[in-house]
Amino acid sequence: MAVGAGDDAAVLSITNGRVVATTDLLVEGRHFRRDWSGPADVGVKAAAQNLADIAAMGARSRTLLVGIACPGDLPAQWVLDMIEGLVAECRRAGASIAGGDVTAADSVMLAVMALGELDALQPVTRAGARPGDHVAVAGRLGWSAAGLALLSAGRADGRDPEIALLAAAHRRPQPPYAAGPAAARAGATAMIDVSDGLLADLGHIASASGVAINLQSASIQVDAAVAAGARLLGADPLDWVLAGGEDHALAATFPARTITPDGWRVIGDVREGGGVTVDGSARKGPAGWDHFR
Amino acid sequence: MAVGAGDDAAVLSITNGRVVATTDLLVEGRHFRRDWSGPADVGVKAAAQNLADIAAMGARSRTLLVGIACPGDLPAQWVLDMIEGLVAECRRAGASIAGGDVTAADSVMLAVMALGELDALQPVTRAGARPGDHVAVAGRLGWSAAGLALLSAGRADGRDPEIALLAAAHRRPQPPYAAGPAAARAGATAMIDVSDGLLADLGHIASASGVAINLQSASIQVDAAVAAGARLLGADPLDWVLAGGEDHALAATFPARTITPDGWRVIGDVREGGGVTVDGSARKGPAGWDHFR
Repeated sequence: MAVGAGDDAAVLSITNGRVVATTDLLVEGRHFRRDWSGPADVGVKAAAQNLADIAAMGARSRTLLVGIACPGDLPAQWVLDMIEGLVAECRRAGASIAGGDVTAADSVMLAVMALGELDALQPVTRAGARPGDHVAVAGRLGWSAAGLALLSAGRADGRDPEIALLAAAHRRPQPPYAAGPAAARAGATAMIDVSDGLLADLGHIASASGVAINLQSASIQVDAAVAAGARLLGADPLDWVLAGGEDHALAATFPARTITPDGWRVIGDVREGGGVTVDGSARKGPAGWDHFR
Repeated sequence: MAVGAGDDAAVLSITNGRVVATTDLLVEGRHFRRDWSGPADVGVKAAAQNLADIAAMGARSRTLLVGIACPGDLPAQWVLDMIEGLVAECRRAGASIAGGDVTAADSVMLAVMALGELDALQPVTRAGARPGDHVAVAGRLGWSAAGLALLSAGRADGRDPEIALLAAAHRRPQPPYAAGPAAARAGATAMIDVSDGLLADLGHIASASGVAINLQSASIQVDAAVAAGARLLGADPLDWVLAGGEDHALAATFPARTITPDGWRVIGDVREGGGVTVDGSARKGPAGWDHFR
Protein backbone atom coordinates (compact mmCIF):
# COMPACT_ATOMS: atom_id res chain seq x y z
CA MET A 1 0.00 0.00 0.00
CA ALA A 2 1.27 3.46 -0.87
CA VAL A 3 -0.98 4.88 1.87
CA GLY A 4 -2.74 2.70 4.40
CA ALA A 5 -5.37 3.16 7.09
CA GLY A 6 -5.71 6.51 8.82
CA ASP A 7 -6.03 8.85 5.88
CA ASP A 8 -9.14 9.76 3.83
CA ALA A 9 -8.57 6.83 1.50
CA ALA A 10 -6.12 4.04 0.77
CA VAL A 11 -3.82 4.13 -2.25
CA LEU A 12 -2.86 0.96 -4.09
CA SER A 13 -0.25 0.59 -6.83
CA ILE A 14 -1.42 -1.64 -9.68
CA THR A 15 1.15 -2.96 -12.10
CA ASN A 16 -0.94 -3.71 -15.17
CA GLY A 17 -3.85 -1.32 -15.02
CA ARG A 18 -6.74 -3.73 -14.33
CA VAL A 19 -8.38 -3.53 -10.93
CA VAL A 20 -10.99 -6.06 -9.83
CA ALA A 21 -13.36 -4.93 -7.07
CA THR A 22 -16.18 -6.57 -5.15
CA THR A 23 -18.20 -6.04 -1.99
CA ASP A 24 -20.27 -8.19 0.35
CA LEU A 25 -22.27 -7.49 3.47
CA LEU A 26 -22.48 -9.77 6.51
CA VAL A 27 -25.34 -9.18 8.92
CA GLU A 28 -25.48 -10.68 12.40
CA GLY A 29 -28.30 -13.20 12.78
CA ARG A 30 -28.44 -13.72 9.04
CA HIS A 31 -24.92 -14.45 7.79
CA PHE A 32 -23.46 -15.38 11.16
CA ARG A 33 -24.53 -16.04 14.73
CA ARG A 34 -22.30 -14.91 17.55
CA ASP A 35 -23.22 -18.03 19.55
CA TRP A 36 -22.13 -20.36 16.71
CA SER A 37 -19.13 -18.46 15.41
CA GLY A 38 -16.37 -16.77 17.34
CA PRO A 39 -15.22 -13.31 16.22
CA ALA A 40 -12.18 -14.68 14.37
CA ASP A 41 -14.50 -17.10 12.49
CA VAL A 42 -16.69 -14.15 11.44
CA GLY A 43 -13.63 -12.29 10.20
CA VAL A 44 -12.37 -15.29 8.25
CA LYS A 45 -15.77 -15.78 6.64
CA ALA A 46 -16.22 -12.10 5.76
CA ALA A 47 -12.80 -12.01 4.14
CA ALA A 48 -13.21 -15.38 2.40
CA GLN A 49 -16.42 -14.56 0.59
CA ASN A 50 -14.95 -11.41 -0.92
CA LEU A 51 -11.54 -12.89 -1.70
CA ALA A 52 -13.33 -15.79 -3.44
CA ASP A 53 -15.20 -13.34 -5.69
CA ILE A 54 -11.86 -11.86 -6.76
CA ALA A 55 -10.43 -15.33 -7.43
CA ALA A 56 -13.54 -16.16 -9.48
CA MET A 57 -12.60 -13.39 -11.93
CA GLY A 58 -9.19 -15.02 -12.34
CA ALA A 59 -7.54 -12.31 -10.25
CA ARG A 60 -5.19 -12.16 -7.27
CA SER A 61 -6.54 -10.30 -4.22
CA ARG A 62 -4.43 -7.38 -3.10
CA THR A 63 -6.30 -5.56 -0.38
CA LEU A 64 -9.48 -5.35 1.71
CA LEU A 65 -11.45 -2.36 3.00
CA VAL A 66 -13.68 -3.16 5.96
CA GLY A 67 -16.70 -1.26 7.29
CA ILE A 68 -17.82 -2.32 10.77
CA ALA A 69 -21.16 -1.31 12.26
CA CYS A 70 -21.64 -2.45 15.85
CA PRO A 71 -23.38 -1.60 19.10
CA GLY A 72 -21.41 0.75 21.34
CA ASP A 73 -21.34 -1.90 24.09
CA LEU A 74 -19.80 -4.63 21.92
CA PRO A 75 -16.54 -5.64 23.63
CA ALA A 76 -13.54 -4.16 21.84
CA GLN A 77 -11.93 -7.60 22.09
CA TRP A 78 -14.64 -9.00 19.81
CA VAL A 79 -13.73 -6.46 17.13
CA LEU A 80 -10.00 -7.07 17.57
CA ASP A 81 -10.46 -10.85 17.30
CA MET A 82 -12.69 -10.40 14.26
CA ILE A 83 -10.01 -8.28 12.59
CA GLU A 84 -7.46 -10.99 13.44
CA GLY A 85 -9.66 -13.41 11.45
CA LEU A 86 -9.82 -10.98 8.55
CA VAL A 87 -6.05 -10.59 8.58
CA ALA A 88 -5.42 -14.34 8.78
CA GLU A 89 -7.65 -15.07 5.80
CA CYS A 90 -6.16 -12.18 3.83
CA ARG A 91 -2.75 -13.73 4.42
CA ARG A 92 -3.98 -17.06 3.02
CA ALA A 93 -4.93 -15.18 -0.16
CA GLY A 94 -1.81 -12.99 -0.26
CA ALA A 95 -3.77 -9.81 0.53
CA SER A 96 -3.72 -7.16 3.29
CA ILE A 97 -6.18 -4.79 4.96
CA ALA A 98 -5.96 -1.20 3.74
CA GLY A 99 -8.50 0.66 5.83
CA GLY A 100 -12.15 1.00 6.62
CA ASP A 101 -14.84 2.68 8.64
CA VAL A 102 -16.41 2.04 12.05
CA THR A 103 -19.83 3.24 13.13
CA ALA A 104 -22.42 2.52 15.79
CA ALA A 105 -25.54 0.47 15.00
CA ASP A 106 -28.00 -1.75 16.85
CA SER A 107 -26.49 -5.00 15.58
CA VAL A 108 -23.19 -6.13 14.12
CA MET A 109 -22.76 -5.74 10.39
CA LEU A 110 -19.64 -5.99 8.27
CA ALA A 111 -19.16 -4.52 4.83
CA VAL A 112 -16.06 -5.85 3.13
CA MET A 113 -14.64 -4.67 -0.18
CA ALA A 114 -11.83 -6.55 -1.87
CA LEU A 115 -9.55 -5.21 -4.58
CA GLY A 116 -7.54 -7.51 -6.78
CA GLU A 117 -5.29 -7.42 -9.75
CA LEU A 118 -5.32 -9.30 -13.05
CA ASP A 119 -1.97 -10.64 -14.23
CA ALA A 120 -2.12 -9.28 -17.78
CA LEU A 121 -5.15 -11.46 -18.49
CA GLN A 122 -8.70 -10.68 -19.42
CA PRO A 123 -11.13 -11.19 -16.52
CA VAL A 124 -13.01 -14.50 -16.59
CA THR A 125 -16.69 -13.54 -16.46
CA ARG A 126 -19.78 -15.73 -16.22
CA ALA A 127 -20.66 -15.16 -19.85
CA GLY A 128 -18.01 -17.04 -21.85
CA ALA A 129 -19.07 -20.72 -21.59
CA ARG A 130 -19.51 -22.42 -24.99
CA PRO A 131 -21.16 -25.69 -25.99
CA GLY A 132 -18.53 -28.44 -25.88
CA ASP A 133 -16.67 -26.93 -22.92
CA HIS A 134 -16.00 -29.02 -19.84
CA VAL A 135 -17.37 -27.97 -16.46
CA ALA A 136 -15.01 -28.29 -13.49
CA VAL A 137 -14.86 -27.38 -9.81
CA ALA A 138 -12.07 -26.65 -7.34
CA GLY A 139 -12.45 -26.66 -3.57
CA ARG A 140 -14.91 -28.14 -1.12
CA LEU A 141 -18.59 -28.75 -1.87
CA GLY A 142 -21.26 -29.45 0.73
CA TRP A 143 -19.03 -28.99 3.77
CA SER A 144 -20.48 -25.70 4.97
CA ALA A 145 -24.08 -26.81 4.37
CA ALA A 146 -23.42 -30.05 6.28
CA GLY A 147 -21.86 -28.07 9.14
CA LEU A 148 -24.83 -25.71 9.23
CA ALA A 149 -27.29 -28.62 9.29
CA LEU A 150 -25.37 -30.25 12.16
CA LEU A 151 -25.18 -26.98 14.11
CA SER A 152 -28.91 -26.36 13.54
CA ALA A 153 -29.72 -29.87 14.75
CA GLY A 154 -27.50 -29.48 17.82
CA ARG A 155 -25.41 -32.43 16.59
CA ALA A 156 -22.09 -30.67 15.96
CA ASP A 157 -20.62 -31.25 19.40
CA GLY A 158 -19.85 -34.97 19.14
CA ARG A 159 -16.36 -36.39 19.40
CA ASP A 160 -16.33 -37.58 15.78
CA PRO A 161 -13.47 -35.65 14.16
CA GLU A 162 -15.20 -35.65 10.76
CA ILE A 163 -18.27 -33.98 12.27
CA ALA A 164 -16.08 -31.37 13.98
CA LEU A 165 -14.47 -30.63 10.61
CA LEU A 166 -17.86 -29.87 9.08
CA ALA A 167 -18.80 -27.37 11.78
CA ALA A 168 -15.37 -25.77 11.36
CA ALA A 169 -15.92 -25.61 7.59
CA HIS A 170 -19.19 -23.73 8.16
CA ARG A 171 -17.45 -21.28 10.45
CA ARG A 172 -14.34 -20.88 8.30
CA PRO A 173 -14.70 -21.63 4.60
CA GLN A 174 -11.46 -22.41 2.75
CA PRO A 175 -11.82 -21.11 -0.80
CA PRO A 176 -9.13 -22.35 -3.21
CA TYR A 177 -7.86 -18.86 -4.07
CA ALA A 178 -4.94 -19.89 -6.27
CA ALA A 179 -7.26 -22.03 -8.41
CA GLY A 180 -8.87 -18.87 -9.83
CA PRO A 181 -5.81 -17.33 -11.51
CA ALA A 182 -4.66 -20.86 -12.45
CA ALA A 183 -7.95 -21.44 -14.29
CA ALA A 184 -7.62 -18.08 -16.04
CA ARG A 185 -4.09 -18.95 -17.20
CA ALA A 186 -5.33 -22.34 -18.43
CA GLY A 187 -7.95 -20.63 -20.61
CA ALA A 188 -11.15 -20.93 -18.53
CA THR A 189 -14.07 -19.53 -20.56
CA ALA A 190 -16.35 -18.73 -17.59
CA MET A 191 -15.98 -18.86 -13.81
CA ILE A 192 -17.99 -18.22 -10.63
CA ASP A 193 -17.56 -18.82 -6.93
CA VAL A 194 -20.06 -21.21 -5.40
CA SER A 195 -21.84 -19.11 -2.79
CA ASP A 196 -25.51 -19.90 -3.53
CA GLY A 197 -25.02 -23.62 -4.29
CA LEU A 198 -23.37 -25.46 -7.18
CA LEU A 199 -26.55 -25.86 -9.29
CA ALA A 200 -27.70 -22.29 -8.64
CA ASP A 201 -24.29 -20.81 -9.45
CA LEU A 202 -23.80 -22.94 -12.56
CA GLY A 203 -27.27 -21.67 -13.49
CA HIS A 204 -25.82 -18.14 -13.38
CA ILE A 205 -23.09 -19.20 -15.84
CA ALA A 206 -25.65 -20.99 -18.05
CA SER A 207 -27.93 -17.98 -18.22
CA ALA A 208 -25.13 -15.38 -18.65
CA SER A 209 -23.52 -17.52 -21.36
CA GLY A 210 -26.78 -18.63 -23.05
CA VAL A 211 -25.93 -22.32 -22.73
CA ALA A 212 -27.07 -25.48 -20.91
CA ILE A 213 -24.90 -27.29 -18.38
CA ASN A 214 -25.14 -30.99 -17.60
CA LEU A 215 -23.38 -32.67 -14.67
CA GLN A 216 -22.54 -36.38 -14.44
CA SER A 217 -23.45 -37.53 -10.94
CA ALA A 218 -20.80 -40.28 -11.18
CA SER A 219 -18.10 -37.58 -11.45
CA ILE A 220 -19.29 -35.60 -8.45
CA GLN A 221 -17.22 -36.39 -5.42
CA VAL A 222 -18.85 -36.61 -2.00
CA ASP A 223 -16.12 -36.12 0.58
CA ALA A 224 -16.01 -38.62 3.46
CA ALA A 225 -16.78 -35.97 6.09
CA VAL A 226 -19.89 -34.84 4.20
CA ALA A 227 -21.03 -38.45 3.84
CA ALA A 228 -20.51 -38.99 7.59
CA GLY A 229 -22.59 -35.90 8.42
CA ALA A 230 -25.36 -37.10 6.12
CA ARG A 231 -25.41 -40.54 7.78
CA LEU A 232 -25.70 -38.87 11.20
CA LEU A 233 -28.71 -36.80 10.16
CA GLY A 234 -30.24 -39.27 7.68
CA ALA A 235 -29.80 -36.70 4.93
CA ASP A 236 -28.87 -37.02 1.25
CA PRO A 237 -25.27 -35.75 1.02
CA LEU A 238 -25.77 -34.87 -2.65
CA ASP A 239 -28.30 -32.20 -1.58
CA TRP A 240 -25.50 -30.46 0.29
CA VAL A 241 -22.97 -30.95 -2.50
CA LEU A 242 -25.30 -29.67 -5.24
CA ALA A 243 -27.33 -27.03 -3.40
CA GLY A 244 -25.26 -25.98 -0.38
CA GLY A 245 -23.54 -22.63 -0.59
CA GLU A 246 -20.86 -20.83 1.39
CA ASP A 247 -17.91 -23.18 0.82
CA HIS A 248 -16.83 -20.74 -1.89
CA ALA A 249 -15.53 -23.44 -4.16
CA LEU A 250 -14.83 -22.23 -7.69
CA ALA A 251 -16.74 -23.55 -10.72
CA ALA A 252 -15.48 -22.91 -14.24
CA THR A 253 -15.81 -23.99 -17.83
CA PHE A 254 -12.79 -24.92 -19.97
CA PRO A 255 -12.40 -25.71 -23.67
CA ALA A 256 -12.69 -29.51 -23.99
CA ARG A 257 -9.03 -30.03 -24.92
CA THR A 258 -7.70 -28.04 -21.97
CA ILE A 259 -5.78 -29.94 -19.32
CA THR A 260 -7.52 -28.62 -16.21
CA PRO A 261 -5.04 -27.23 -13.68
CA ASP A 262 -4.18 -28.91 -10.37
CA GLY A 263 -7.08 -29.03 -7.96
CA TRP A 264 -9.78 -28.82 -10.65
CA ARG A 265 -12.14 -31.80 -11.17
CA VAL A 266 -14.23 -32.18 -14.32
CA ILE A 267 -17.88 -32.86 -13.40
CA GLY A 268 -19.87 -32.13 -16.55
CA ASP A 269 -20.11 -30.38 -19.87
CA VAL A 270 -21.66 -27.41 -21.62
CA ARG A 271 -24.40 -27.96 -24.24
CA GLU A 272 -26.70 -25.95 -26.48
CA GLY A 273 -29.84 -24.80 -24.69
CA GLY A 274 -30.42 -23.45 -21.19
CA GLY A 275 -30.59 -24.51 -17.54
CA VAL A 276 -28.64 -26.98 -15.45
CA THR A 277 -29.30 -30.73 -15.38
CA VAL A 278 -27.79 -33.73 -13.59
CA ASP A 279 -27.46 -36.85 -15.77
CA GLY A 280 -29.74 -35.11 -18.27
CA SER A 281 -32.62 -34.35 -15.87
CA ALA A 282 -33.59 -31.40 -13.71
CA ARG A 283 -32.63 -32.13 -10.12
CA LYS A 284 -35.40 -32.17 -7.52
CA GLY A 285 -34.48 -30.84 -4.11
CA PRO A 286 -33.27 -27.65 -2.46
CA ALA A 287 -32.62 -24.93 -5.01
CA GLY A 288 -29.95 -22.96 -3.20
CA TRP A 289 -29.85 -19.76 -1.25
CA ASP A 290 -32.53 -17.07 -1.62
CA HIS A 291 -31.26 -13.72 -0.33
CA PHE A 292 -34.73 -12.69 0.87
CA ARG A 293 -36.23 -15.95 2.07
CA MET B 1 -15.91 -0.40 -16.61
CA ALA B 2 -14.50 -3.45 -18.34
CA VAL B 3 -17.06 -5.58 -16.49
CA GLY B 4 -19.95 -4.06 -14.57
CA ALA B 5 -22.62 -5.27 -12.17
CA GLY B 6 -23.84 -8.86 -12.42
CA ASP B 7 -20.57 -10.78 -12.31
CA ASP B 8 -18.53 -11.85 -9.28
CA ALA B 9 -16.63 -8.57 -9.28
CA ALA B 10 -16.24 -5.39 -11.26
CA VAL B 11 -13.17 -4.71 -13.37
CA LEU B 12 -11.80 -1.21 -13.76
CA SER B 13 -9.08 -0.05 -16.13
CA ILE B 14 -6.64 2.35 -14.52
CA THR B 15 -4.36 4.42 -16.73
CA ASN B 16 -1.52 5.22 -14.39
CA GLY B 17 -1.42 2.44 -11.85
CA ARG B 18 -2.56 4.26 -8.70
CA VAL B 19 -5.93 3.35 -7.28
CA VAL B 20 -7.49 5.27 -4.39
CA ALA B 21 -10.12 3.42 -2.35
CA THR B 22 -12.36 4.34 0.56
CA THR B 23 -15.47 3.09 2.33
CA ASP B 24 -18.17 4.59 4.55
CA LEU B 25 -21.21 3.14 6.26
CA LEU B 26 -24.55 4.93 6.65
CA VAL B 27 -26.94 3.58 9.26
CA GLU B 28 -30.62 4.53 9.42
CA GLY B 29 -31.45 6.53 12.55
CA ARG B 30 -27.85 7.52 12.95
CA HIS B 31 -26.61 8.96 9.64
CA PHE B 32 -30.03 9.60 8.13
CA ARG B 33 -33.70 9.59 9.10
CA ARG B 34 -36.23 8.40 6.58
CA ASP B 35 -38.71 11.03 7.81
CA TRP B 36 -36.23 13.88 7.22
CA SER B 37 -34.56 12.64 4.05
CA GLY B 38 -36.11 11.10 0.98
CA PRO B 39 -34.45 8.05 -0.57
CA ALA B 40 -32.74 10.10 -3.28
CA ASP B 41 -31.32 12.39 -0.56
CA VAL B 42 -29.92 9.36 1.26
CA GLY B 43 -28.32 8.14 -1.98
CA VAL B 44 -26.80 11.54 -2.69
CA LYS B 45 -25.39 11.75 0.83
CA ALA B 46 -23.99 8.22 0.81
CA ALA B 47 -22.24 8.84 -2.50
CA ALA B 48 -21.05 12.34 -1.55
CA GLN B 49 -19.23 11.35 1.61
CA ASN B 50 -17.24 8.66 -0.21
CA LEU B 51 -16.56 10.71 -3.33
CA ALA B 52 -15.34 13.54 -1.06
CA ASP B 53 -12.82 11.18 0.57
CA ILE B 54 -11.42 10.36 -2.87
CA ALA B 55 -11.23 14.07 -3.77
CA ALA B 56 -9.43 14.73 -0.47
CA MET B 57 -6.57 12.50 -1.66
CA GLY B 58 -6.29 14.66 -4.78
CA ALA B 59 -7.90 11.95 -6.91
CA ARG B 60 -10.77 11.71 -9.39
CA SER B 61 -13.52 9.27 -8.47
CA ARG B 62 -14.12 6.55 -11.04
CA THR B 63 -16.60 4.11 -9.59
CA LEU B 64 -18.73 3.17 -6.59
CA LEU B 65 -19.63 -0.22 -5.11
CA VAL B 66 -22.77 -0.18 -2.98
CA GLY B 67 -23.88 -2.66 -0.33
CA ILE B 68 -27.52 -2.30 0.73
CA ALA B 69 -28.95 -4.00 3.81
CA CYS B 70 -32.67 -3.47 4.27
CA PRO B 71 -35.82 -5.04 5.70
CA GLY B 72 -37.62 -7.36 3.30
CA ASP B 73 -40.73 -5.14 3.47
CA LEU B 74 -38.94 -1.95 2.44
CA PRO B 75 -40.70 -0.72 -0.73
CA ALA B 76 -38.60 -1.46 -3.80
CA GLN B 77 -39.31 2.10 -4.93
CA TRP B 78 -37.36 3.41 -1.93
CA VAL B 79 -34.30 1.45 -3.04
CA LEU B 80 -34.71 2.52 -6.68
CA ASP B 81 -35.01 6.19 -5.69
CA MET B 82 -32.01 5.85 -3.38
CA ILE B 83 -29.97 4.41 -6.23
CA GLU B 84 -31.12 7.31 -8.42
CA GLY B 85 -29.60 9.64 -5.81
CA LEU B 86 -26.36 7.65 -5.83
CA VAL B 87 -26.20 7.81 -9.62
CA ALA B 88 -26.95 11.54 -9.73
CA GLU B 89 -24.18 12.35 -7.26
CA CYS B 90 -21.76 10.03 -9.04
CA ARG B 91 -22.45 11.95 -12.23
CA ARG B 92 -21.60 15.25 -10.46
CA ALA B 93 -18.22 13.69 -9.62
CA GLY B 94 -17.69 12.03 -13.01
CA ALA B 95 -18.06 8.51 -11.56
CA SER B 96 -20.38 5.54 -12.12
CA ILE B 97 -21.75 2.62 -10.09
CA ALA B 98 -19.98 -0.68 -10.76
CA GLY B 99 -21.85 -3.17 -8.63
CA GLY B 100 -22.70 -4.13 -5.11
CA ASP B 101 -24.56 -6.45 -2.80
CA VAL B 102 -28.06 -6.53 -1.33
CA THR B 103 -29.05 -8.37 1.82
CA ALA B 104 -31.88 -8.44 4.33
CA ALA B 105 -31.49 -6.77 7.73
CA ASP B 106 -33.73 -5.22 10.40
CA SER B 107 -32.93 -1.64 9.44
CA VAL B 108 -31.58 0.16 6.42
CA MET B 109 -27.82 0.38 6.15
CA LEU B 110 -25.66 1.37 3.23
CA ALA B 111 -22.02 0.51 2.71
CA VAL B 112 -20.48 2.54 -0.07
CA MET B 113 -17.00 2.08 -1.45
CA ALA B 114 -15.46 4.48 -3.89
CA LEU B 115 -12.52 3.89 -6.20
CA GLY B 116 -10.63 6.77 -7.74
CA GLU B 117 -7.60 7.42 -9.84
CA LEU B 118 -4.62 9.71 -9.36
CA ASP B 119 -3.54 11.69 -12.42
CA ALA B 120 0.16 10.83 -12.27
CA LEU B 121 0.46 12.62 -8.94
CA GLN B 122 1.37 11.49 -5.49
CA PRO B 123 -1.64 11.23 -3.19
CA VAL B 124 -2.14 14.18 -0.85
CA THR B 125 -2.23 12.71 2.64
CA ARG B 126 -2.91 14.37 5.99
CA ALA B 127 0.73 14.21 6.97
CA GLY B 128 2.51 16.71 4.71
CA ALA B 129 1.68 20.13 6.25
CA ARG B 130 4.78 22.22 7.09
CA PRO B 131 5.22 25.33 9.24
CA GLY B 132 4.78 28.37 7.01
CA ASP B 133 2.13 26.72 4.81
CA HIS B 134 -1.20 28.43 4.28
CA VAL B 135 -4.43 26.74 5.30
CA ALA B 136 -7.31 26.98 2.84
CA VAL B 137 -10.82 25.57 2.39
CA ALA B 138 -13.06 24.91 -0.61
CA GLY B 139 -16.80 24.33 -0.43
CA ARG B 140 -19.53 25.07 2.08
CA LEU B 141 -19.00 25.25 5.83
CA GLY B 142 -21.75 25.19 8.45
CA TRP B 143 -24.62 24.63 6.02
CA SER B 144 -25.36 21.03 6.93
CA ALA B 145 -25.05 21.69 10.67
CA ALA B 146 -27.40 24.69 10.37
CA GLY B 147 -29.87 22.56 8.41
CA LEU B 148 -29.70 19.80 11.01
CA ALA B 149 -30.28 22.30 13.85
CA LEU B 150 -33.30 23.75 12.02
CA LEU B 151 -34.73 20.29 11.29
CA SER B 152 -34.18 19.23 14.90
CA ALA B 153 -35.95 22.38 16.14
CA GLY B 154 -38.85 21.86 13.70
CA ARG B 155 -38.00 25.25 12.12
CA ALA B 156 -37.00 24.07 8.62
CA ASP B 157 -40.47 24.35 7.08
CA GLY B 158 -40.74 28.14 6.83
CA ARG B 159 -41.07 29.98 3.56
CA ASP B 160 -37.70 31.68 3.87
CA PRO B 161 -35.70 30.42 0.88
CA GLU B 162 -32.39 30.67 2.77
CA ILE B 163 -33.74 28.39 5.50
CA ALA B 164 -34.96 25.90 2.89
CA LEU B 165 -31.47 25.91 1.37
CA LEU B 166 -29.95 24.90 4.71
CA ALA B 167 -32.29 21.92 5.14
CA ALA B 168 -31.52 20.90 1.55
CA ALA B 169 -27.80 21.21 2.28
CA HIS B 170 -28.18 18.84 5.22
CA ARG B 171 -30.04 16.36 3.01
CA ARG B 172 -27.73 16.73 0.02
CA PRO B 173 -24.19 17.94 0.67
CA GLN B 174 -22.38 19.43 -2.32
CA PRO B 175 -18.68 18.59 -1.97
CA PRO B 176 -16.40 20.54 -4.31
CA TYR B 177 -14.99 17.42 -6.02
CA ALA B 178 -12.88 19.17 -8.64
CA ALA B 179 -11.16 21.23 -5.94
CA GLY B 180 -9.34 18.10 -4.71
CA PRO B 181 -7.34 17.27 -7.85
CA ALA B 182 -6.91 21.04 -8.45
CA ALA B 183 -5.29 21.40 -5.02
CA ALA B 184 -3.04 18.40 -5.73
CA ARG B 185 -1.89 19.93 -9.04
CA ALA B 186 -1.24 23.24 -7.26
CA GLY B 187 1.07 21.49 -4.79
CA ALA B 188 -1.11 21.04 -1.70
CA THR B 189 1.00 19.53 1.10
CA ALA B 190 -1.90 18.00 3.08
CA MET B 191 -5.64 17.65 2.54
CA ILE B 192 -8.74 16.28 4.27
CA ASP B 193 -12.48 16.39 3.72
CA VAL B 194 -14.43 18.15 6.46
CA SER B 195 -16.74 15.48 7.78
CA ASP B 196 -16.25 15.81 11.55
CA GLY B 197 -16.04 19.64 11.64
CA LEU B 198 -13.41 22.09 10.41
CA LEU B 199 -11.49 22.33 13.71
CA ALA B 200 -11.62 18.57 14.32
CA ASP B 201 -10.49 17.73 10.79
CA LEU B 202 -7.72 20.34 10.77
CA GLY B 203 -6.75 18.72 14.07
CA HIS B 204 -6.26 15.46 12.16
CA ILE B 205 -3.91 17.24 9.73
CA ALA B 206 -2.08 18.95 12.63
CA SER B 207 -1.54 15.69 14.47
CA ALA B 208 -0.63 13.61 11.37
CA SER B 209 1.80 16.33 10.23
CA GLY B 210 3.19 17.19 13.67
CA VAL B 211 2.35 20.88 13.33
CA ALA B 212 0.04 23.56 14.78
CA ILE B 213 -2.66 25.27 12.75
CA ASN B 214 -4.00 28.76 13.46
CA LEU B 215 -7.08 30.22 11.79
CA GLN B 216 -7.83 33.94 11.44
CA SER B 217 -11.50 34.43 12.32
CA ALA B 218 -11.59 37.52 10.10
CA SER B 219 -10.82 35.32 7.07
CA ILE B 220 -13.54 32.78 7.82
CA GLN B 221 -16.59 33.43 5.72
CA VAL B 222 -20.06 32.92 7.20
CA ASP B 223 -22.44 32.47 4.28
CA ALA B 224 -25.66 34.52 4.36
CA ALA B 225 -27.89 31.44 4.63
CA VAL B 226 -25.94 30.15 7.63
CA ALA B 227 -26.16 33.59 9.29
CA ALA B 228 -29.93 33.65 8.65
CA GLY B 229 -30.36 30.22 10.23
CA ALA B 230 -28.34 31.31 13.27
CA ARG B 231 -30.50 34.42 13.70
CA LEU B 232 -33.65 32.28 13.58
CA LEU B 233 -32.40 29.95 16.33
CA GLY B 234 -30.37 32.53 18.31
CA ALA B 235 -27.25 30.45 17.65
CA ASP B 236 -23.64 31.43 16.97
CA PRO B 237 -23.11 30.73 13.24
CA LEU B 238 -19.37 30.32 13.82
CA ASP B 239 -20.12 27.19 15.91
CA TRP B 240 -21.60 25.62 12.79
CA VAL B 241 -18.84 26.85 10.51
CA LEU B 242 -16.01 25.67 12.79
CA ALA B 243 -17.50 22.52 14.33
CA GLY B 244 -20.27 21.37 11.97
CA GLY B 245 -19.50 18.37 9.81
CA GLU B 246 -21.10 16.71 6.84
CA ASP B 247 -20.81 19.50 4.24
CA HIS B 248 -17.72 17.67 2.99
CA ALA B 249 -15.83 20.83 2.21
CA LEU B 250 -12.14 20.24 1.55
CA ALA B 251 -9.41 21.68 3.75
CA ALA B 252 -5.79 21.75 2.63
CA THR B 253 -2.42 23.26 3.28
CA PHE B 254 -0.34 24.91 0.56
CA PRO B 255 3.20 26.26 0.48
CA ALA B 256 2.94 29.99 1.29
CA ARG B 257 3.90 31.16 -2.19
CA THR B 258 1.32 28.97 -3.95
CA ILE B 259 -1.51 30.73 -5.72
CA THR B 260 -4.45 28.75 -4.36
CA PRO B 261 -6.65 27.37 -7.14
CA ASP B 262 -10.14 28.68 -7.94
CA GLY B 263 -12.63 28.05 -5.17
CA TRP B 264 -10.03 27.83 -2.40
CA ARG B 265 -10.06 30.48 0.38
CA VAL B 266 -7.06 31.01 2.67
CA ILE B 267 -8.20 31.02 6.31
CA GLY B 268 -5.05 30.47 8.34
CA ASP B 269 -1.52 29.20 8.52
CA VAL B 270 0.62 26.32 9.75
CA ARG B 271 3.03 26.82 12.66
CA GLU B 272 5.47 24.88 14.80
CA GLY B 273 3.79 23.01 17.64
CA GLY B 274 0.51 21.14 17.84
CA GLY B 275 -3.25 21.62 17.96
CA VAL B 276 -5.63 24.02 16.26
CA THR B 277 -6.27 27.58 17.41
CA VAL B 278 -8.44 30.47 16.24
CA ASP B 279 -6.75 33.89 16.47
CA GLY B 280 -4.09 32.23 18.61
CA SER B 281 -6.44 30.71 21.21
CA ALA B 282 -8.17 27.38 21.67
CA ARG B 283 -11.80 27.71 20.62
CA LYS B 284 -14.45 27.00 23.22
CA GLY B 285 -17.60 25.30 21.96
CA PRO B 286 -18.70 22.13 20.23
CA ALA B 287 -15.77 19.93 19.38
CA GLY B 288 -17.18 18.08 16.38
CA TRP B 289 -18.59 14.66 15.72
CA ASP B 290 -17.90 11.71 18.01
CA HIS B 291 -18.61 8.43 16.23
CA PHE B 292 -19.74 6.72 19.43
CA ARG B 293 -21.49 9.53 21.31
